[in-house]
Amino acid sequence: MGMTERKSKKGLYTLGLDFGTLSGRAILVDIGDGSVISEAVMDYPHGVMDRELPCGKPIPRGWAFQHPADYLQVLEYIVPETVKKSGVEAAKIIGLAVDFTGVTLVTLDKEGTPLCFLPEFEAEPLSYVIHWKHHGAAPYRAEVQAALETHEPGLLVRHGGTLSDEGMMVKVLQVLREAPEVYEAADLVMEAGDWVTMELTGRLVRSQAMAGFKAFWQQDKGYPDECFYEQIDPELKHYTTTKLRGELRMIGERAGGLTGEMAEKFGLLPGTPVATSHYDGHAALLGAGISEPNVAMLTLGTSGGFILAHKEAKPVQGTTGVTENGDLPGYYGYASGQSGVGDWFAWFVNNMLPEAYVREAEDKGVAVQALLSEKAARLKPGESGLIALDWISGNRSVLANSDLSCMMLGMTLQTKPEDIYRTLLEGVAFGTRRIRDSYTQAGVAVDGIHAVGGIVKKNPLLMQIYADVLSCHISICKSTQAAALGAAMFAAAAAGEEKGGYGTIIEAIEQMSEMEPYGYDPIPENVAVYDQLYEEYVRLHDYFGTGENDVMKRLRKIT
Amino acid sequence: MGMTERKSKKGLYTLGLDFGTLSGRAILVDIGDGSVISEAVMDYPHGVMDRELPCGKPIPRGWAFQHPADYLQVLEYIVPETVKKSGVEAAKIIGLAVDFTGVTLVTLDKEGTPLCFLPEFEAEPLSYVIHWKHHGAAPYRAEVQAALETHEPGLLVRHGGTLSDEGMMVKVLQVLREAPEVYEAADLVMEAGDWVTMELTGRLVRSQAMAGFKAFWQQDKGYPDECFYEQIDPELKHYTTTKLRGELRMIGERAGGLTGEMAEKFGLLPGTPVATSHYDGHAALLGAGISEPNVAMLTLGTSGGFILAHKEAKPVQGTTGVTENGDLPGYYGYASGQSGVGDWFAWFVNNMLPEAYVREAEDKGVAVQALLSEKAARLKPGESGLIALDWISGNRSVLANSDLSCMMLGMTLQTKPEDIYRTLLEGVAFGTRRIRDSYTQAGVAVDGIHAVGGIVKKNPLLMQIYADVLSCHISICKSTQAAALGAAMFAAAAAGEEKGGYGTIIEAIEQMSEMEPYGYDPIPENVAVYDQLYEEYVRLHDYFGTGENDVMKRLRKIT
Repeated sequence: MGMTERKSKKGLYTLGLDFGTLSGRAILVDIGDGSVISEAVMDYPHGVMDRELPCGKPIPRGWAFQHPADYLQVLEYIVPETVKKSGVEAAKIIGLAVDFTGVTLVTLDKEGTPLCFLPEFEAEPLSYVIHWKHHGAAPYRAEVQAALETHEPGLLVRHGGTLSDEGMMVKVLQVLREAPEVYEAADLVMEAGDWVTMELTGRLVRSQAMAGFKAFWQQDKGYPDECFYEQIDPELKHYTTTKLRGELRMIGERAGGLTGEMAEKFGLLPGTPVATSHYDGHAALLGAGISEPNVAMLTLGTSGGFILAHKEAKPVQGTTGVTENGDLPGYYGYASGQSGVGDWFAWFVNNMLPEAYVREAEDKGVAVQALLSEKAARLKPGESGLIALDWISGNRSVLANSDLSCMMLGMTLQTKPEDIYRTLLEGVAFGTRRIRDSYTQAGVAVDGIHAVGGIVKKNPLLMQIYADVLSCHISICKSTQAAALGAAMFAAAAAGEEKGGYGTIIEAIEQMSEMEPYGYDPIPENVAVYDQLYEEYVRLHDYFGTGENDVMKRLRKIT
Repeated sequence: MGMTERKSKKGLYTLGLDFGTLSGRAILVDIGDGSVISEAVMDYPHGVMDRELPCGKPIPRGWAFQHPADYLQVLEYIVPETVKKSGVEAAKIIGLAVDFTGVTLVTLDKEGTPLCFLPEFEAEPLSYVIHWKHHGAAPYRAEVQAALETHEPGLLVRHGGTLSDEGMMVKVLQVLREAPEVYEAADLVMEAGDWVTMELTGRLVRSQAMAGFKAFWQQDKGYPDECFYEQIDPELKHYTTTKLRGELRMIGERAGGLTGEMAEKFGLLPGTPVATSHYDGHAALLGAGISEPNVAMLTLGTSGGFILAHKEAKPVQGTTGVTENGDLPGYYGYASGQSGVGDWFAWFVNNMLPEAYVREAEDKGVAVQALLSEKAARLKPGESGLIALDWISGNRSVLANSDLSCMMLGMTLQTKPEDIYRTLLEGVAFGTRRIRDSYTQAGVAVDGIHAVGGIVKKNPLLMQIYADVLSCHISICKSTQAAALGAAMFAAAAAGEEKGGYGTIIEAIEQMSEMEPYGYDPIPENVAVYDQLYEEYVRLHDYFGTGENDVMKRLRKIT
């Protein structure tokens, strides 16, 4: 990773296009050292639609959609804007790639038009982009799980033994059952990342990695047999060869070249290599500088992710997926998710923070979270006597149950907001430790941790708590746009050596990533206290999470 | 209770002197109908001393004291002020009585001077008034309990099977062990209520009822035998005949007549009857208009009380005491306490209420608690999916454990402050239901409930929740100064018929109390939901409270 090597690629650039939950961002990156030359961001005009459709029709609670026109509009703003701002000539921009949230599903008619664009579907929510946050398909989870149990028990194991309601098949089943005319009209069902990539290249190429993590595709077998789909519903029998058809390519491979039309809009050269897409969370692993197996990327944003590569496929409790070449070529990619992280902290700050603290933060000219962190940092581990289960949005990892909810205990009249705030930070760290335990118990070693995400840089207290709770060094990724940077790395690999890019993803990661010079080391006396607290956490986790007392689930049903 | 009867006593008055936690209050009451003619309040200059002594010496955490000079200063302000304001001539004021917090202990030297007044004890916390809130004696609880188990198992049953650390003997033992020179110097150890009464009359007379509830005195046996005290500590062998000496009299009996000195200070006649004292919580039962057995007084203030009279002594789990003539003559008085009620709500409002709600309350010109209640009242029972254990100050009733702490579960990103607020209200109501259950399970029927306390009038939502959770009618006491009114009733009974007062306490209650014309009736659909939620409450109560998972206790010890 010396400067000499890095300099050898100077003067060549790729574009990483990161489509997040609320906005899309493009960055133009120097592939010599990964530095960002220019960038542009744009919010989706419709955001996440979870209350009403554009026509005013109300959307049931827990359902969530996006508007496909937003993606195109954002795309056509952020790319030319980034290129223009950079002042780099088109010939030096040797590739681009998209990363996207997922499972975020687009349905297209025979002309490739998103179904919601058709007047007859304007008022049908399920014709819009079904967002990753959509939980309306939950009632169909069990049917898909049952079919896996019958036909693909090994695949179920790779999904941690319990299927989430966010997977592709569960969502498609909801469409089939609740909006059969949409299912019928759909010529193609696509991950939004694959669709936007197809819009760039004009070619139907899908991402193997995305299909592997969320659509039951396997390197050796492809998709499950027809009988699997038939068990779910006879209508689905030919699903994979019809609506899910299309060539699948590996991460870092080229999906195609930029179409002439797009090239003109963007100010790029026609034929510029476009890499296959990947989920934003996985693209971030590259951006986080992980080029080896058994180093976990810990993503801390509104929610959390724990992703790593390992040489074999092992049954790890609560993974959301295990996929060959899912993150690093030649290794199995493993993904686990933590549902409430920054979301939980923000919920607390927005709903529970007393006026006096808001005033104090104003007086000091700091953000309220910074004030809370400052106060919480003065507390010793265990001092507050509080402990919490971090299930504000359910448990997406070991317990895989979205009906679980948050618990906190230990409050007394002496409990202050900073006590509670620190307990939330500790709660997510315990949640991550519980995930790591499930890996190590399955024989998947976790030898290092690279932390990535905005919170990681803004909240040193949280990172120290992580180091103390996990009892290991935490490295901090320099980029705050790891997903977009990862996409730029995919692009550099897809460009290949012949275009001046890289021969492998690994090479791109090693050249284009950078870690902060600082990191966090565990403090032995804190580790000792957190070991005790973690024992309590696990006991409560199991009591409320594994059936001994299903009160959280019952409370959700009580009215 | 007709107007005619009431009018027959018009023109005669008594004074009720209520010594609460932070202030003392006097009311002058028309004994014909209980109406308050005049009143005066004064805060104790030293309040509750829990950080440092007047000399600046720091006080350990959890310890709490008061300054005996404060009581005298307050007494000498509130009584003459009330008398003066009323314009009533001294001859028409036929009695007075004191109610007091407890166990609140004063130690006196041979001259009757509180020990903390002596220069040598100025810096000794345990020479001050040991406040009912003082928890420094907790380490001595077990020794006293062990002696009860050996010598007075029946008495232990009357204390609910587990002694609290607030009782007299536990506090005295701390003094003996940690400040033996104070114990040695103490000629008398007195309940503050008895001491102030002695200051009024110049005579050493104690309250049977207070001694029964908190100092192991029994109508038939008196205090336990010497061997009981000897087991605790040989130094205590003669405790009851020395430091605890003094005649004991029943509630409503006369402790003496006002001394000439006090009469002059107050503008009253020398010899005016002074009744025996009682704890404020029990005096309130009279003020709440309860003249029959098996009607419970539910006190809702910073903490809660559940008090009733029953014809027999039964072993009720978690009572803090069962005492003959403890509340109504001829019946056993039963007392149970709930440690965190208004305290808990205030903790939430002071520490957790977001700025937006404070602004909204300001804009609407209402108190924040009123705004919260308004929002919480719009929620249906069970709608929030939350449940809480009301142990913010431990559990003072069925579980009798001050190391327990609060628990809440069910929080999601949708949880709003009003959801949590309503859950606190429900939590205390479930706590009360659990107390009522322990009475009915022991064969002590609860046929009616009279609610008393400031919250009771200010928070109709809470009272409706109580009616729904308890599934019974809740009557509301008109007086917001039930304890002071109860003291005035004791005074009217102590004055006796010969002075124009009443022959019995019962008569005084029936004449001088009044209920609000409204009350709260259970709403059947709410009752059905709360029955389900209460089942969950009990399960969590038992899990965290009865040893299955002692996490709350362990967390308190972790640092």
